[in-house]
Amino acid sequence: MTDCSVTFHPHDIRVTVKKGATLLDAALAARITINNLCGGDGICGRCKMIVTSGEVTGAVTGKLTREEIKKGFVLACMTLVQSDLDVEVPPETLAKEKRIADREAERFRGMREDTPAWKQYSPSPLTKKIYLEIEKPELANNMADHQRVCDIIKKRVNAASMQMGLKIIQTIPTALRENDYKITATIGLRRDVAEVMNIEGGNTAKENYIAVIDMGTTTIVAHLLDAVNMKTLDAKACFNSQGMYGREVTGRMITAEKKGTEEFQKLLVKDINQLILGLSEDNSVSLKDITAAVCAGNTAMGHFLLGLPTENIRRYPYVASSVAPPPFRAAEVGIEINPRGLLYSLPGISGWVGSDLTAGILATGIYEKDELSLLVDIGTNGEIAVGNRDWIIVCSASAGPALEGASVECGMRAESGAIERVYAENGVIRSRTIGDAKPKGICGSGLIDLLSVLLQEGIIDRSGKIIEGSSDRTETVDGLGRFILTEPVESLNGKAVFITESEIENIITAKAAIFAAMKILLERLELTFRDIQHFYIAGAFGNYIDVENAITIGLIPNIPRERVHFAGNTSIEGAKLAALYNEAFFALERIRENTTYYDLMGANDYIDEFRKALFLPHTDIELFKESGSCQRV
Amino acid sequence: MTDCSVTFHPHDIRVTVKKGATLLDAALAARITINNLCGGDGICGRCKMIVTSGEVTGAVTGKLTREEIKKGFVLACMTLVQSDLDVEVPPETLAKEKRIADREAERFRGMREDTPAWKQYSPSPLTKKIYLEIEKPELANNMADHQRVCDIIKKRVNAASMQMGLKIIQTIPTALRENDYKITATIGLRRDVAEVMNIEGGNTAKENYIAVIDMGTTTIVAHLLDAVNMKTLDAKACFNSQGMYGREVTGRMITAEKKGTEEFQKLLVKDINQLILGLSEDNSVSLKDITAAVCAGNTAMGHFLLGLPTENIRRYPYVASSVAPPPFRAAEVGIEINPRGLLYSLPGISGWVGSDLTAGILATGIYEKDELSLLVDIGTNGEIAVGNRDWIIVCSASAGPALEGASVECGMRAESGAIERVYAENGVIRSRTIGDAKPKGICGSGLIDLLSVLLQEGIIDRSGKIIEGSSDRTETVDGLGRFILTEPVESLNGKAVFITESEIENIITAKAAIFAAMKILLERLELTFRDIQHFYIAGAFGNYIDVENAITIGLIPNIPRERVHFAGNTSIEGAKLAALYNEAFFALERIRENTTYYDLMGANDYIDEFRKALFLPHTDIELFKESGSCQRV
Repeated sequence: MTDCSVTFHPHDIRVTVKKGATLLDAALAARITINNLCGGDGICGRCKMIVTSGEVTGAVTGKLTREEIKKGFVLACMTLVQSDLDVEVPPETLAKEKRIADREAERFRGMREDTPAWKQYSPSPLTKKIYLEIEKPELANNMADHQRVCDIIKKRVNAASMQMGLKIIQTIPTALRENDYKITATIGLRRDVAEVMNIEGGNTAKENYIAVIDMGTTTIVAHLLDAVNMKTLDAKACFNSQGMYGREVTGRMITAEKKGTEEFQKLLVKDINQLILGLSEDNSVSLKDITAAVCAGNTAMGHFLLGLPTENIRRYPYVASSVAPPPFRAAEVGIEINPRGLLYSLPGISGWVGSDLTAGILATGIYEKDELSLLVDIGTNGEIAVGNRDWIIVCSASAGPALEGASVECGMRAESGAIERVYAENGVIRSRTIGDAKPKGICGSGLIDLLSVLLQEGIIDRSGKIIEGSSDRTETVDGLGRFILTEPVESLNGKAVFITESEIENIITAKAAIFAAMKILLERLELTFRDIQHFYIAGAFGNYIDVENAITIGLIPNIPRERVHFAGNTSIEGAKLAALYNEAFFALERIRENTTYYDLMGANDYIDEFRKALFLPHTDIELFKESGSCQRV
Repeated sequence: MTDCSVTFHPHDIRVTVKKGATLLDAALAARITINNLCGGDGICGRCKMIVTSGEVTGAVTGKLTREEIKKGFVLACMTLVQSDLDVEVPPETLAKEKRIADREAERFRGMREDTPAWKQYSPSPLTKKIYLEIEKPELANNMADHQRVCDIIKKRVNAASMQMGLKIIQTIPTALRENDYKITATIGLRRDVAEVMNIEGGNTAKENYIAVIDMGTTTIVAHLLDAVNMKTLDAKACFNSQGMYGREVTGRMITAEKKGTEEFQKLLVKDINQLILGLSEDNSVSLKDITAAVCAGNTAMGHFLLGLPTENIRRYPYVASSVAPPPFRAAEVGIEINPRGLLYSLPGISGWVGSDLTAGILATGIYEKDELSLLVDIGTNGEIAVGNRDWIIVCSASAGPALEGASVECGMRAESGAIERVYAENGVIRSRTIGDAKPKGICGSGLIDLLSVLLQEGIIDRSGKIIEGSSDRTETVDGLGRFILTEPVESLNGKAVFITESEIENIITAKAAIFAAMKILLERLELTFRDIQHFYIAGAFGNYIDVENAITIGLIPNIPRERVHFAGNTSIEGAKLAALYNEAFFALERIRENTTYYDLMGANDYIDEFRKALFLPHTDIELFKESGSCQRV
């Protein structure tokens, strides 16, 4: 096959690709990071480029306006290279610097040290520093340096066994003598063994921080904990750079099998490092004082983090490489904290239910309650747990990233300028943005509100189609209906904020997948929604969903409102508990052991239930009415 | 200072040194390994070179014949570079290939699996391999690969806790699927934690070997153990290459402080690797099947092995860096066995009493006996332990390498061609060599015999001086008396085997240091030699000393013969027990904890006792008569 040379401007990077490759492949080869959310499916319309010379072919797309097409714009993912090319990459197409300042970080910080869960344990971080003033040796007491230090640490730390690496032992003699026998030891918990990870001169015990990371398929969130004062200092988030290889983990696992897991590990670790570096800089915390990274996420993300093969997760009988890896040196996977800092990848349940859900079970405390609880964690995969102190059963449903504001052209994360609330006032549809800024897009909670309001105002029907002539804010572009929420003149960037019929369909698909999964899981247990005493909704936007709107669109069942708890990002919340409280860390292991995975892929009736849920709120309106009667209980 | 360029032939290696440097320094800089045993003190006479052009200065030496001086021979260690030089290095000066075939290895093998110590434990090597046939996953049992493997190992191995490194976890999925779920796991003991060190396909459990090394100051001995059949396969030994930096550890520690410990680590590890490689080749054992290296030695050697600083060992208050390091990955220090094999550096007592003596205490079992025992381990340092099941006290005395056949011009290790026995027959002094080969030198046991015979035959007096006219086999060369044991015509290399007065003095010094240390230690305990029920003599040549001759020269006291046990190389013997039997390994740690170090350097009366012992057998003949009376008990 012929080779073609593609030169990207303004970078002036030239790469050679086979004729017929996509422009996106060429950009990946050139290591140009593109603001691409859909993984090359032609859905998000964000990989726009201008071909200034040379020949390309490609499918027609509704993502480009006639204006843009005239100017030579193409979607890189849908465009095939046919000759040598010159390509201009517009600024808005380039991925923004991944480290996002997030002035509005409170929204997903979950800085809730005052919750009961935080109060029930006594402080005992996974890594701690202890300051030691050591007796100087004399002839009558000339015990070797290493044994002298171990002896005093053993007295201070309560651990069955203790370990120390050769590099640390080598440094002890000098550390003792250059610091007048006053040193600080960093101790990390490796299962039931205490590892002396580091020895440094003087008293640095007051500076001990832990980075906690929720590795979502679409969004990565990092919190910085002060492990001395037991509180959250700050939080940051970014989109997962792996998105360039597909919106869903399945696609990424297929690519990983071909290209190797290392590429995915590299992208994930780079994102995590950028978040940690930003947190460290903004809070004047030295990276060397971050002594641990604690990570939760779905099982595929956990595998990518550790460079474990993922291919057996997606093949019968769906076997993970490891769901409970031991702690490792963070540097082993490239995470940049203290060079001897530890990486805790928290335990999950199975190939399709990860540590994000065990962390959620920990954070909500459903594993300790007598009453029955249901936890639904809404992410790119919806994960569901049902149970009590005696048993827990979990399942997973592929929802896609629509509810996170991704794969929606005007979608964005919950940050300043995102429309987070939509409501109707005297028949007029209005919206509110985060930080009351000029709107530039719409986030998950806004999308749920929007669908509910459009349905209630008669602008869309129960299948999500726009009803012709129902509003003067609807229009049809390239044969596809859309509703304009914000006119160009009112928005931050002079572009309209809108939602298309196909995007509405994506959102309905996502909520249907989640609802059907909950329903099937309960049916298997011979339970109904009315048996659930505590209904926890978790997810990046969990705190901010409007319950009534969520019920109106059928994302959650019509149950008594007082039973509904918005638990926020329980993945990061549980990971933070594990980071700061040994008891919580060990509880996670017990949760893992006592939880059963139920595989929906083996359930024939799941597809039926899913189809029934592809309406607003549901094909079976009776179901919602019946549940509604619970409200009177 | 002027630089001089020194070119060595036949290597044609040119180095630049400061004017005034020794030729030995220049050779070290050129990385030419010289057959140098005395560490540059002008004693061994083995660093002969010929200066073919240029100017040198240097002291007069008795180590060169007039013939040699005429030919331009110099001793590199005593010769100062004054200009650019050309230097010829004769073949006999170059260190022989360090890996010595040792057909006579039985002499120091200690292949004594039939001793009571070996019989009292049940087989449990520090590293073991277990073959696993693992149940294949199915939907109803799709536990993750890592957890599946750990579960079955936990059932097979009795360990409080288990660990596995990331690299191993990464390989499990492929190892399982490519080998039909039949794998072999290598498990290593790290204190009370069992580490899964390796996973390989198929059944390799029958191939598991451990290398055991005694790291002597002068001699390094390595044994290869079959850890499945619990026996010694083979043994090899070589001189310690660190000898080029001095005969005694103190000198090496001084150099290490200037040049860094790494140089000493490198030399030691290279020696160990060559021995292990030789053992592996000769016995058709793959290096990857050697899963552990177990090392015993004096504390300085232990420090050099691990790259630990040694400078505080020789300074008040004599503090070691570590006397009980945990197991490490052998590759961390460069030891070439299985890449994930473990290195066990056994626990010692203090900076001056190492794991060679704790291993000796283990091997002789004196820590388990009701009666009082004394163990003297004769090496370059003499180490002494006195005690019983309730207490043990130890000390160390610097003897020098004379008793090992080093720093004696005709001295050699106990290998083929070494004179190992000297005796008088009708007034004629005769000798016997190892393997009945033509003599080429004399080893430790031969030297003790020789001194005893020379004293008994009236050829030397009680201070070791040759009595003029006492024999036609004495002569004076360069003012120094010597006794010819083998005439040139009878020897292997056409050179006489002889001993000089100054060498006799070295041997007397060595035995005096050891005897004085034993005596002072017993005095402190208010004991005498007659209180000792078991008197163990250990050391490389321990098995072969003639008791009567050793008593005649005063190396050991005159005690009842049935109480004397030649225990051989108890350092390697104890290390082998620890390698193959967990109980023995843990006993070593208890021995370490229950043993007290007594510092002779702080004893004023030690020098007095040492001086009194500088005669044959002792200044105080009564002492020996008195002890002799014990024989009647």
